Amino acid sequence: MEDVLETTPGWLSRDELEQARAQMPILYVEAVPVRVDESGEVTGIGLLLRIASDGTVSRALVSGRVLHHERVRDALVRHLEKDLGPVALPRVPASPQPFTVAEYFPTPGVTPYHDPRQHAVALAYIVPVSGDCRPRQDALDLVWFTPEEAASPLVQQEMQGGQGVLLKQALAHVGRLL
Amino acid sequence: MEDVLETTPGWLSRDELEQARAQMPILYVEAVPVRVDESGEVTGIGLLLRIASDGTVSRALVSGRVLHHERVRDALVRHLEKDLGPVALPRVPASPQPFTVAEYFPTPGVTPYHDPRQHAVALAYIVPVSGDCRPRQDALDLVWFTPEEAASPLVQQEMQGGQGVLLKQALAHVGRLL
Amino acid sequence: MEDVLETTPGWLSRDELEQARAQMPILYVEAVPVRVDESGEVTGIGLLLRIASDGTVSRALVSGRVLHHERVRDALVRHLEKDLGPVALPRVPASPQPFTVAEYFPTPGVTPYHDPRQHAVALAYIVPVSGDCRPRQDALDLVWFTPEEAASPLVQQEMQGGQGVLLKQALAHVGRLL
Amino acid sequence: MEDVLETTPGWLSRDELEQARAQMPILYVEAVPVRVDESGEVTGIGLLLRIASDGTVSRALVSGRVLHHERVRDALVRHLEKDLGPVALPRVPASPQPFTVAEYFPTPGVTPYHDPRQHAVALAYIVPVSGDCRPRQDALDLVWFTPEEAASPLVQQEMQGGQGVLLKQALAHVGRLL
Repeated sequence: MEDVLETTPGWLSRDELEQARAQMPILYVEAVPVRVDESGEVTGIGLLLRIASDGTVSRALVSGRVLHHERVRDALVRHLEKDLGPVALPRVPASPQPFTVAEYFPTPGVTPYHDPRQHAVALAYIVPVSGDCRPRQDALDLVWFTPEEAASPLVQQEMQGGQGVLLKQALAHVGRLL
Repeated sequence: MEDVLETTPGWLSRDELEQARAQMPILYVEAVPVRVDESGEVTGIGLLLRIASDGTVSRALVSGRVLHHERVRDALVRHLEKDLGPVALPRVPASPQPFTVAEYFPTPGVTPYHDPRQHAVALAYIVPVSGDCRPRQDALDLVWFTPEEAASPLVQQEMQGGQGVLLKQALAHVGRLL
Repeated sequence: MEDVLETTPGWLSRDELEQARAQMPILYVEAVPVRVDESGEVTGIGLLLRIASDGTVSRALVSGRVLHHERVRDALVRHLEKDLGPVALPRVPASPQPFTVAEYFPTPGVTPYHDPRQHAVALAYIVPVSGDCRPRQDALDLVWFTPEEAASPLVQQEMQGGQGVLLKQALAHVGRLL
Repeated sequence: MEDVLETTPGWLSRDELEQARAQMPILYVEAVPVRVDESGEVTGIGLLLRIASDGTVSRALVSGRVLHHERVRDALVRHLEKDLGPVALPRVPASPQPFTVAEYFPTPGVTPYHDPRQHAVALAYIVPVSGDCRPRQDALDLVWFTPEEAASPLVQQEMQGGQGVLLKQALAHVGRLL
């Protein structure tokens, strides 16, 4: 890789994050929380329920930024714990290979994914969780759906920015999209 | 994803890139150029030959940043064309799923990959090329190796920052690491 | 693997194939022929058109058995040439990793895939083809669809045994299932 | 798929298995048992220790046939339980996508894998196990190795038929092959 620059590690202030978002793709991880049976087959999909300030109901996957000097798998653990609580017992995959890469563009239509704030590139993983999920922070609740329900128009239309597409890709990857 | 910010697309000046590198992971793509036979089996691996200002010889994979508002596959095409020339005829994969994700840390030892300048996260792809490769820019030459040669200590020790490890992962992925 | 037996390579007669099908899973390969643009993005899906003796129209992926002492990639080349003709220029993937494994059971409902004749396990691959496709043998024609058309109910209902599901999995894998 | 035959499900006698092995590829599953830490990173690899009748020591992955009318994931569970005991708590992957496909040929040199008895095609999976492993049947013991040890010449030379190559592919897939 090209030239060598002096760098000082650090964190982003709100202004700096805003500036960075205008200038480069921001690395995200996204996790599809699933319940599996003894043979590993997916039996349920967990979606976060969010209610916006205008009362709009939406459902979301676990998602968040990878920080400077943070490994992708540590970012996954951190966001899963933040969104599902401390006793969800998520099983982060052994392989760093994501099942897909979702590219959220600020301009709609470039890809199936859209984020008005930024160009975000998300590494997406299926994460079985075997423990008790107790969402915190801004998530109101975690609701489990069957694979059939998760792919249904009803659930799909409650997902934003293309996360419904990503969810269907996850279902296809585990052989549960009919 | 959290709050919504107003952003203005733009490019990074040298100073801004330096600043960003100190504050967030930088998204890269890496490509392993390969020759394949009629049945798709890998018969050759293309490595860029670089000679540093101090005369050190090193071999490298095709690698570079993903820019703001650029798709991953467009970044791959751009860097392949930059490094292999305009008539290499690279076959960028149909799927966005990389064969692995290489996390280059400024601190050695966190992962097998190391980049003193920055925390870079690279999506890695195998890219068959069928055309004529004519390296430009800072690459002196492109040399083709057999899978056996590419995994040999001689070639491995000429690769830097853990790219030799990434090359072996690529060989394993195509079933050509013995 | 357990004990060592003396074996003599050979081919299956009709009776022997029938007997084998009643007793063990039969290994298949399946290929989803696609057209891609310069950046590797899938722009078209090729489906074989078949008309059964009762006049029923059906559309199918490229599919067939792996023979004794035949490599998976050679089986792919053979079936692609058989179904798409000699100048289709298929690009069999460099990696043996299939995008999924489709398990066709003689009993409906065990998996999304069903084959009344046998228990077939198919390794499924995306195969870009850049040449001219001229179907032979029992296929009447090869028709190209956009990703949107391929996932539509109209096309899906013309596919049998769960191949429509497999097609949607392929579209999801290449990021083209909306 | 071609014609429709009447079939009767059943099991193979020793003679029938011998006959089938001479005539078609036999479908196998192979599992690489691993220990993972909280972030999913592989910390240990479990290898079965076997002592042949001539006293030769060998190490092996979990491996076995897929039976007629048995799902791949059920075959994985069955062979893992057979080789690791009933309380190993294996986590069979949610996705049917294997990390690679290993093709064992009766003729050495066609691929890196060799099985003098048969042409076997194995779907290979990484399987985290969190419980207590108590090998039974013909396995004497299960020994845990670090990723570095597993890739070392010492361990590699105790593996047969190319399983050492498959083990290195597994290590590469989880980012633990240096």
